[in-house]
Amino acid sequence: MNQPVRIGIVGLGTVGSGVVRLLVDSADHITRHAGRPILVEKAVVFDPAKKRTVQVPGGKISSDIHDISRDESISVVALLVGGLEPARSMMVELLEQGKDVVTANKALLAEHGPELFALARKQGRSIAFEAAVAGGIPIVAAIGECLAANRIESIRGILNGTSNFILTRMEEDGSSYAEALKLAQAKGFAEADPSMDVDGTDATQKLAILAHLAFGAWVPWAEIPRTGIDGLDIDLLHYAAELGYRIRLVALATRSDDRLAMRVAPALVKIGTPLAETRGAYNAVSLVGDAVGRMFFHGLGAGQMPTASAVVADIIDTVVGRTAITFRTTGLLSPDSPAAKLAGVATHQRHFLRIHVSDRPGVLARITGILGDHGISIASVIQHDPVQQDPADIQQTGVPLVIMTHTCAATAVEAAVAEIDRSDAVRGRSVCLGVLDD
Amino acid sequence: MNQPVRIGIVGLGTVGSGVVRLLVDSADHITRHAGRPILVEKAVVFDPAKKRTVQVPGGKISSDIHDISRDESISVVALLVGGLEPARSMMVELLEQGKDVVTANKALLAEHGPELFALARKQGRSIAFEAAVAGGIPIVAAIGECLAANRIESIRGILNGTSNFILTRMEEDGSSYAEALKLAQAKGFAEADPSMDVDGTDATQKLAILAHLAFGAWVPWAEIPRTGIDGLDIDLLHYAAELGYRIRLVALATRSDDRLAMRVAPALVKIGTPLAETRGAYNAVSLVGDAVGRMFFHGLGAGQMPTASAVVADIIDTVVGRTAITFRTTGLLSPDSPAAKLAGVATHQRHFLRIHVSDRPGVLARITGILGDHGISIASVIQHDPVQQDPADIQQTGVPLVIMTHTCAATAVEAAVAEIDRSDAVRGRSVCLGVLDD
Repeated sequence: MNQPVRIGIVGLGTVGSGVVRLLVDSADHITRHAGRPILVEKAVVFDPAKKRTVQVPGGKISSDIHDISRDESISVVALLVGGLEPARSMMVELLEQGKDVVTANKALLAEHGPELFALARKQGRSIAFEAAVAGGIPIVAAIGECLAANRIESIRGILNGTSNFILTRMEEDGSSYAEALKLAQAKGFAEADPSMDVDGTDATQKLAILAHLAFGAWVPWAEIPRTGIDGLDIDLLHYAAELGYRIRLVALATRSDDRLAMRVAPALVKIGTPLAETRGAYNAVSLVGDAVGRMFFHGLGAGQMPTASAVVADIIDTVVGRTAITFRTTGLLSPDSPAAKLAGVATHQRHFLRIHVSDRPGVLARITGILGDHGISIASVIQHDPVQQDPADIQQTGVPLVIMTHTCAATAVEAAVAEIDRSDAVRGRSVCLGVLDD
Repeated sequence: MNQPVRIGIVGLGTVGSGVVRLLVDSADHITRHAGRPILVEKAVVFDPAKKRTVQVPGGKISSDIHDISRDESISVVALLVGGLEPARSMMVELLEQGKDVVTANKALLAEHGPELFALARKQGRSIAFEAAVAGGIPIVAAIGECLAANRIESIRGILNGTSNFILTRMEEDGSSYAEALKLAQAKGFAEADPSMDVDGTDATQKLAILAHLAFGAWVPWAEIPRTGIDGLDIDLLHYAAELGYRIRLVALATRSDDRLAMRVAPALVKIGTPLAETRGAYNAVSLVGDAVGRMFFHGLGAGQMPTASAVVADIIDTVVGRTAITFRTTGLLSPDSPAAKLAGVATHQRHFLRIHVSDRPGVLARITGILGDHGISIASVIQHDPVQQDPADIQQTGVPLVIMTHTCAATAVEAAVAEIDRSDAVRGRSVCLGVLDD
């Protein structure tokens, strides 16, 4: 039997506890894959006095990162705290002290990836981050290693489990957004402050990381256009269903020559297609490679043990030496990464519009006239008889008019919707969502 | 720029040509992932005089394996010929001469895996085989590396693209089995002699390899119970559809403590579930890990470029050194692999039966009585009025009676069907298929 490798863990929250539990409960199995036992020697936490559900096998727990970073018996550290600080400073300290780091912190990588990767490279260390994107789905390895022979042409992902859980509850239970969010919080699928999840930030940070793996270019996440699910209401889901679609928060990156189109936004996905069948806290990634064709991955995108599964796989890869090779050969986030040329790609697709219009003669003609002026032709229209509504309400909020367009340029639709929303026949702001038919 | 690594290719058929094309066409991209250029130095083929659609970049082509095996400038060889011989002898020669081997030959591994892996280990070389199972889907890496922290509990796969293409054509076009097979041959999805695909052999060999990766145990493929799609007729698909199911050739392995249940057979899969939505030449694998939960992978399972994608990924992994690590640490097919304890696992599920019965009083009572005697209760029955059939035909072939059971033991159903088929009320042999509801 080989000597055990001693590792450190920073953070014993949900994921950190799961990692310790997995390393202990499946020790035999993991030893077989790593070629030697993996022993959690020390943990660093904010409050060492707090009662824990797991025991650190090495028995050492402190609040000082130096207890791990300066311990020469420890070569690999799992950094499992969220947010930017002190996570960033801790990773810098660990790399400077010569540790290989495994992390699940996508915000940290999306925000400070280039400087952290440069530091790791300078120190001859590695950073592994399978758990940072799509939880248990091994999408980082798939794109970075298994599909390495392919030029990736496009990626579409459902990358935020919280948003997907909320949308699925609204769709299946008819709950309002607020009710579904409350349920997500009660079930632990959403945090007390869910804004990073529901406003699209989390999915956008993950998309930035995936797109770098797939396309080489590094796009600062804040430059990627994003819309969350927090502006959606149940009526939109009902209209989508009437047309044969569901609504999902879709992260999208498409390469066209050397340009990238990237976006995170709610979109209509056709019922029966894999993204539409991705429910609850599941994540999914669909991608197209020039050799492999279309591939689809589906699995739990968050939660204690699925995330721990990815972290421990990275720990094994780091211990056996695979991570060092991958980190060296792929040159992730290196200064030679090609500059991103975001946008400039004309997106053509069908669009779904919901417009609240005044219930008076000539309005439909005006709306459709504006669309026609922008070269947009209409595939279908829904306007239900507002028979059960109070006429005073109708006067106030208008009646909903839903239009599905034929394929047209996103820029044309945006211009048309802006003009429609300026019209005095319209109440409030219209909703415009892209439509994914395949 | 690092020195190029020189590789050899044995076999320039569909896959071999695809590998050369991918290495040439995507050279820049692949160099970036491998850290150095990969150059196909020599090819060995059966007929060097044959006109080829691809040029070997190194320009050397011969019919003698020694031209590659004894060339010390070549360290990695892609062995891309099918069948057992001369593939086996060639792999032995390559390993004995110190080459690392990449292969797509699942029959060779299923039949001679243990001896070939032992030889590779003795020689300090590696065998990579991502392309041997599920074509472009990186399921070997997923199970062997990415999900290494998990105890896999079950695997369900659609692993034979030919069978799936035929079933999809029958289901979508209403073609007969023979017509769909002919179309598959015309489109290059089935070989002139399709028996290894349609009788379940190919899927069973792939299942044996996947199960070894997932469970450690090595089960000789010929011991795994298998039924192909060659006994299916279009009526079975229609009855399945009437009940809300499609029929797929499903490869199944389930762990229960230290026992394995394995089987390849046509099964009913519920419409809307991922396996039912796997169409045409696509493959799919659904698995459950104790940490990660349920994962699903879907992609092209065969064809020139998807298979080449997997072969080139393995070549890159071998060149950079990841394969050597994985091969060493996972101890695949080593003498310490636990012995398989196949069967002995009671499989409980719903079953679909089609029985051709005489059209006379009391028959339904007799059939259902036999089922009842075996403790099998009935969920639904279909017997259509045979109004359009010739009474003489009915006398000859009987009328079809379709029964969906509630969950029951497979052994009970087998015993009941055997008794039913012995009854003089029954014409021909009944069909009994398992039902997968999730």
